[in-house]
Formats: sequence, structure tokens, C-alpha cells
Amino acid sequence: MSFLAKEAAHVEGFAPELAVVTTGGGKELEEPLAVRPTSETVVNHMFAQWIRSRRDLPLMINQWCNVMRWEMRTRPFVRTSEFLWQEGHTAHATADEATATAREFVGLYARFAREVAALPVIVGRKSRAESFAGANVTFTIEAMMGDGRALQAGTSHDLGSNFAKAFGTRFAGGDGAGAGAPSPSQGQGDGASSPASTTLSYVHQSSWGVSTRMVGGVVMAHGDDGGARLPPALAPVQVVIIPIFKKGSDPAAVVSAAHALAAACAAAGVRAKVDADADKTPGWKYAHWEVKGVPLRAEVGPRDLEAGACAVTRRDLPRGAGKVEGGLPLDPPAFAAGAQALLGEVQASLMAQATAFRDGRIVNVTSYEELKAAVAGGLWARGPWAGTDADEARVKEETGATLRCFPFPDEEAGNGGGTGTCFMTGAAGGEVAVFARSY
Amino acid sequence: MSFLAKEAAHVEGFAPELAVVTTGGGKELEEPLAVRPTSETVVNHMFAQWIRSRRDLPLMINQWCNVMRWEMRTRPFVRTSEFLWQEGHTAHATADEATATAREFVGLYARFAREVAALPVIVGRKSRAESFAGANVTFTIEAMMGDGRALQAGTSHDLGSNFAKAFGTRFAGGDGAGAGAPSPSQGQGDGASSPASTTLSYVHQSSWGVSTRMVGGVVMAHGDDGGARLPPALAPVQVVIIPIFKKGSDPAAVVSAAHALAAACAAAGVRAKVDADADKTPGWKYAHWEVKGVPLRAEVGPRDLEAGACAVTRRDLPRGAGKVEGGLPLDPPAFAAGAQALLGEVQASLMAQATAFRDGRIVNVTSYEELKAAVAGGLWARGPWAGTDADEARVKEETGATLRCFPFPDEEAGNGGGTGTCFMTGAAGGEVAVFARSY
Repeated sequence: MSFLAKEAAHVEGFAPELAVVTTGGGKELEEPLAVRPTSETVVNHMFAQWIRSRRDLPLMINQWCNVMRWEMRTRPFVRTSEFLWQEGHTAHATADEATATAREFVGLYARFAREVAALPVIVGRKSRAESFAGANVTFTIEAMMGDGRALQAGTSHDLGSNFAKAFGTRFAGGDGAGAGAPSPSQGQGDGASSPASTTLSYVHQSSWGVSTRMVGGVVMAHGDDGGARLPPALAPVQVVIIPIFKKGSDPAAVVSAAHALAAACAAAGVRAKVDADADKTPGWKYAHWEVKGVPLRAEVGPRDLEAGACAVTRRDLPRGAGKVEGGLPLDPPAFAAGAQALLGEVQASLMAQATAFRDGRIVNVTSYEELKAAVAGGLWARGPWAGTDADEARVKEETGATLRCFPFPDEEAGNGGGTGTCFMTGAAGGEVAVFARSY
Repeated sequence: MSFLAKEAAHVEGFAPELAVVTTGGGKELEEPLAVRPTSETVVNHMFAQWIRSRRDLPLMINQWCNVMRWEMRTRPFVRTSEFLWQEGHTAHATADEATATAREFVGLYARFAREVAALPVIVGRKSRAESFAGANVTFTIEAMMGDGRALQAGTSHDLGSNFAKAFGTRFAGGDGAGAGAPSPSQGQGDGASSPASTTLSYVHQSSWGVSTRMVGGVVMAHGDDGGARLPPALAPVQVVIIPIFKKGSDPAAVVSAAHALAAACAAAGVRAKVDADADKTPGWKYAHWEVKGVPLRAEVGPRDLEAGACAVTRRDLPRGAGKVEGGLPLDPPAFAAGAQALLGEVQASLMAQATAFRDGRIVNVTSYEELKAAVAGGLWARGPWAGTDADEARVKEETGATLRCFPFPDEEAGNGGGTGTCFMTGAAGGEVAVFARSY
């Protein structure tokens, strides 16, 4: 609790979300412990001990851990009181390096979202009101779910020296900008005799994280009434192969053919699974693997063995439309190569569907009335914004939509959003902002 | 807290170790929450909802998560209030299956410890007093640290139906043994019309876990005064290659040769790293990588380029004795092959050293006096035991040693421990037990 209290904005932002341990080992604690909602404070407590000179910088650590934030309403994967995430933390000698690192990681998250999860996220900067408590600037990737709501799917923060000042995270050999009182370790350790060490500078920091929320984003962006539709790059099973048993023919022959296909897939780096369970019908299995979102399904029956080809169905297309013309050859290497090519098509198709869906649901607005109409219709509104925090709060209050981000200009190319007169206040110099209802 | 309270032995064992959240989101909670010390209760809460019929069995789940147990004295990695572990949980239709699964996983841990971590663990059964709170039987792997203390490095529990009875985890289609009141779902779902479904049976369960404590075990079992000595199978860097710069010769040539060696290592599946930092001396680097326990160090200087071979030092042998006769050839594929062979030797050597150390520090005892002498001398004591819980408590009280385990008989072959007259009570039918001071 005392760590959290050291950075004023941080504690103000997180205090309402804390789970607090007051009893440990059967005894009331002298100082209550907060179950960590994020780890900037404890990280700085350590960084202040690890960092002495410029040579210790830049410093980057990453941890996978569970964190906890008290939530009034939870929703599986998307908003849970406890969640698993990775949180990265860096310290740099200059402000520019910290900013560049924060930008680099939101860019990494965007690439992961687009290239692996097939989520056409919008990348940008959060408004002051929506930024991380304790950050100078927060960058975000915003994904559109299948119901039109926005999901903040990953964030990266330029923390400046806010936590460094609260925890005394300083180094010798910098330009001394923002230096405070002399370091307690001054005069000790290496470099103490050089003139530069007489001045200590605060480090500049970034932090960034993605969580299991991303799992919810994938399910809710791509899923349909039949269940999940997993992008092949993420799918634990990319191809499920189902042997079809017929009376009067040898079941071992189709099972053996199915396993030969799976083995060829494994050799080609395609994750395939044979479902040869004799207790379940093919129809049961189709539904089972459809719900799980497996990108490709192959069926191998006795007649297919004679024909030398098997039926293949894509999960990314609507039910009834997913059948692949001509199927795939039963020759194992040819099957694996064909499956690999189809998986590439499915990956691209899910991205294209999500992009078309997103682009059809963002409208450019030139007035508050237009924003209200868009949001009421389940759409995202995009337009030049120069409003105050109070204006932003009013939009939220009156429409339920929040300012999701100011998209990076290079992400906005050709989207027609433009810059100019604020649609809310009429002030000049508005920056393009995106508003939406969100999870 | 109410989940924990459902299984009487479980709550009694864990209550003194709980961290309890009493405030959430700024409000006092109606029911305090325990930060999970382990997850049998919440797992059974879910299993009771997921398991309906025999066809749902066996069921196995695994999770990696952090758990918390309030500790009076902590020690890095070996005993920390919060730690990361994997915990596996299973449910079975028969008691034999649950027991066999618990045995299977302690066997897996033993294999990992021996074959990967080079820890010659003793595998066996815990005494009743030392078993997991809520288990029928606990199996363990016990490792000897460099100071002679024992470390419980992984455990696996045969839970019987203890948690199943506390949480009503039942299935239709069993033999009805131990069945309680009719299921709330009786008459619903598939199979409800078959006679077997009229009786519900409790599932039989196992759970098992290893934690980051294993990291401490590796450091403390193999480490020496120079730092860690990592078994190659675990080492993130298996070979560090250090270019040696000499005045009057081209530094780029040695750096380039070093990178060629590292590339050949990567191609051969050997994890190699070049440390070409121009700001540090070779001596600084030797010490740095020695502390980190890197199994092999290669040095590449200008004269080595001419000679076509480089000096190589093994970390598993005492300082001064680790130099590999003749070094390794500078031809990259030959270097990689030679490194791979040496890594195999280092792995075997660490296991042999730890085994010899262990075997030299376990003594067979035939009386309590002999046990006391052994433990006072920092040794482990092994002998036939038929004592009561009170006898076991007395040994702990008077010597500080605890009953680490009853080694599995097939693990005891040829160790001379034998079975027979209890060294403590003189009773017949003693089972071989191992006592030691532990972490």
C-alpha cells in the first residue's frame, strides 16, 4: 500500500480497484498488502537498487504474472478480476528513448493482432482521461468486436520520470536533467570519482502489457453462431481429420489413411489432429470442432480412399459455403501442402472479413449530433476533436461512448477522417479521434 | 474461505498460511477471500459442474499460476510467500486410476529432476504428518542441497474422494461406491434412462505440482563458490564464446570467427552466445559467465585463428581443472559437434558429482542414537521405521530432522537400507524411511 501511495496519480487511479490483504498467517498485518493490480511500483523499488550508472541502461524486464483489479461486473476473458498477462518495464537514459520504446511495443502488439490474431486494430494514443494512472501518455490497440463494441486489446505507456521520481530511480552519467537530492549511494561504487557522478538523473521509463483479454477479443471478433473461428496462426489444431466409418468396409483403412495425412501435416509444420473416436458420430464431431473454431476439417471415408481425394471444409465461410471445391488429394504430402495453402487463405479471409466489418461500422462525423446518431446505431464515430476533459466526459455520459484513441497519423492515411475543426466545440486544430462504446 | 472450509483437513492445514483479502474495491467484503494457496477447492467446484457421467472421465487439467502461502521466513526461490507453479488436477472413475496417476506424475518429476536438472532425487511416499492437507497419500521427490539439507522438489497427491465428497463431484455409470445423496441433475441429461444412472459415484482424484523452488534446488545442489553450475539441458546459454582482442591484430577477425562458431552451434541445436563487448576485459567476462553457470566457455584469440583451435573450459570441474585438453577445432561444424559432446559430458558429470555427494551423506541407522549422530553431522539417516506420529514429532523436536519419505522399494535396491526392526521403537515390520534436516 505504501508503494502504491508513492506515485499520486497511480494510487488515485488504482485505489478503487484494489483487493487488499489485511490478514496474513492468521494475524492482522501492520501494513495491509495490495494484491498487485500492475507492477510499476515494485519494479521501481528494484530498479532503484539495480541502476547506478548510465552503463546499467537501457534496462528491460518482462514478467508473466497474474494481477487483480476489483471489478463490479466481470465477463469471461474480457473483464475478469484476476487475469494473466505479460508486463514489460524499461528504464532509459533519455526521454526520447522511453517514448520510442513505448511506441515500439504498441507497434509490436499491433503486428501481433493483425498478423497472428487477424484483428484489424486501430493503433493510437489514449486521451488524458483514458490514460494509465501514472503515465505521461498511453498508446493502445483498439479492436472491434462482432457486436460493434471496442475492445482495448493491449496498451503501452510512456511513463516519463513519474515513477522514477517517486522511487528515486536515478543514474550517474546523464545530463542531470530533473536531478533531485544527492543519491544516498553517492561517493560509493564505480565511477564515483568521475565528475559526472556528482549529478544523478532520473531514468525515463516505459511499461506495456497484453493479457488473456486477447483471447476474448479473438473469440468475439471472429466468432459466429456456430462458435469460435480461430485464425490458423493461433489455432492449436489447424486441421481436424475425421475418419468416416461405413458398414461393410474396414474402419482400420480410413483411420490409417487419416493418420498418414496427419503425419504429413506434422512434417510440414501443420497442426493436424485425427478424431477417430468410435463412440461419436461424424455429425457430433463436426459440431464439436466447429464450436472450437478449427480452421479446416477433412473427412476420410471408404469411397474417398477409392477416389484418392477427401472432402475439406473451411471454418471461415458461412455454414454450407465452406466446402472446398474438389477437396484435397489423399496423397499425404500433397494433402499437407494443400492444407497449408488453404490455411493461408483462411487467415487472410478472417482478416479481410474483420476489416470489411470494421470499415463498414466507422463513420466520419462533423458534429456531436452525428456522433450521437452513429453511436446509437452501434457504430464507431471518427472526427476532429479539440474538446476538453469535460467535453469528453459529457460524450461518455450522454452516449455511453468513450474516446478510444487518437489514431496515429500514418494509420489514418486515406480514411477520410482528416483534421481540422473540432466537431464538438468548433475549435480549430482538432486531432482525429475515434469514439465507441466499449467493453 | 467457504470453499477451503469444505474439506476439514485441507482448511486445518492451510489456515495458518493464508493471506486473506478483506477489502475489495474500497468496500469490506461480506465473505473474505483467501489468496489461493493451491486450487483443489476451486477445481472441485468446477469439476462438480463439468462431470456428469463416466464418459467425462478421466479428466485432467493443468494450470500455471501464482499461489501464496504466508511464510515467517523466506529464502529466494526455495521458500517465498508467492511462487509460480504448475498444478495438475485429475478425476477418475476408480481409486486405482487416481493412485496410478499420482504415481505417474511423481515419476515424471523424478525423471525431469534426474535427466534434465541432474538432481539425483529420492522418490517416495510422505509420512502422514508430512502429507498434503486433504490427501490420502503424498508422493515426493527429495533432493540434497550442497549444504546437505533436503529440499522437497515436487509432490504428487492421491486425494482419494476427499474433495469429491466435500464438493459433490460425482458421476453416473460407476459402481456407486461411496455414493451419497441423489444428484441434483438426476433424471436429466444423457444416459438418464439407463439403470446405472440412478446411482452416482464420487470421483477419485490426484493433484501434483512443481514450482520455481526447483530453480533454487538447481542452484543450491550444483553451485560452488564461483556461482551457479547449470546442467546443460537446462542452461539458457550452453556455450559462451569470448573473442580475445590483442593489440596489433584485427578485432573483427576474432569476432567474425566467434560468430561463425555460434552459428554452427545454433544449426546443431547448441545454445551459444558471443560476448564481444569491447568495454569489458576477458577476465571480467570469465567471472560474469562463471557466476551464471554457463557449462562451457570458449576463447578465440588471434593466435587461435592461426592454430585452428581454441581453448575451452568446463564449468562442472573445479577452477583450474576445467580446461579441455587440446581445446576444440575452429572449424565451425567440428566445433559445434565437439561442444555437443562436451555438454553431454558436463551433464553426466554434474549428475555423477551430485550422486556421489548424496551417497556419501546418507547413512544407514539402526538406533535413534545413530540417527541423532548422523543428523548432528549434517547427514541424512536411513533406516526401518515403524514409529507413531508422536515418535516422528519427537525426532523433529529433538534433532530438527523430518521424515523426508519412505523411498519406493524399487528406488531402494542395493542401498542397504533393508526392512525390519524399527530403529526407534524396536517394533517389527519397519519400512525404510529417510530423515534429514530440510529447507
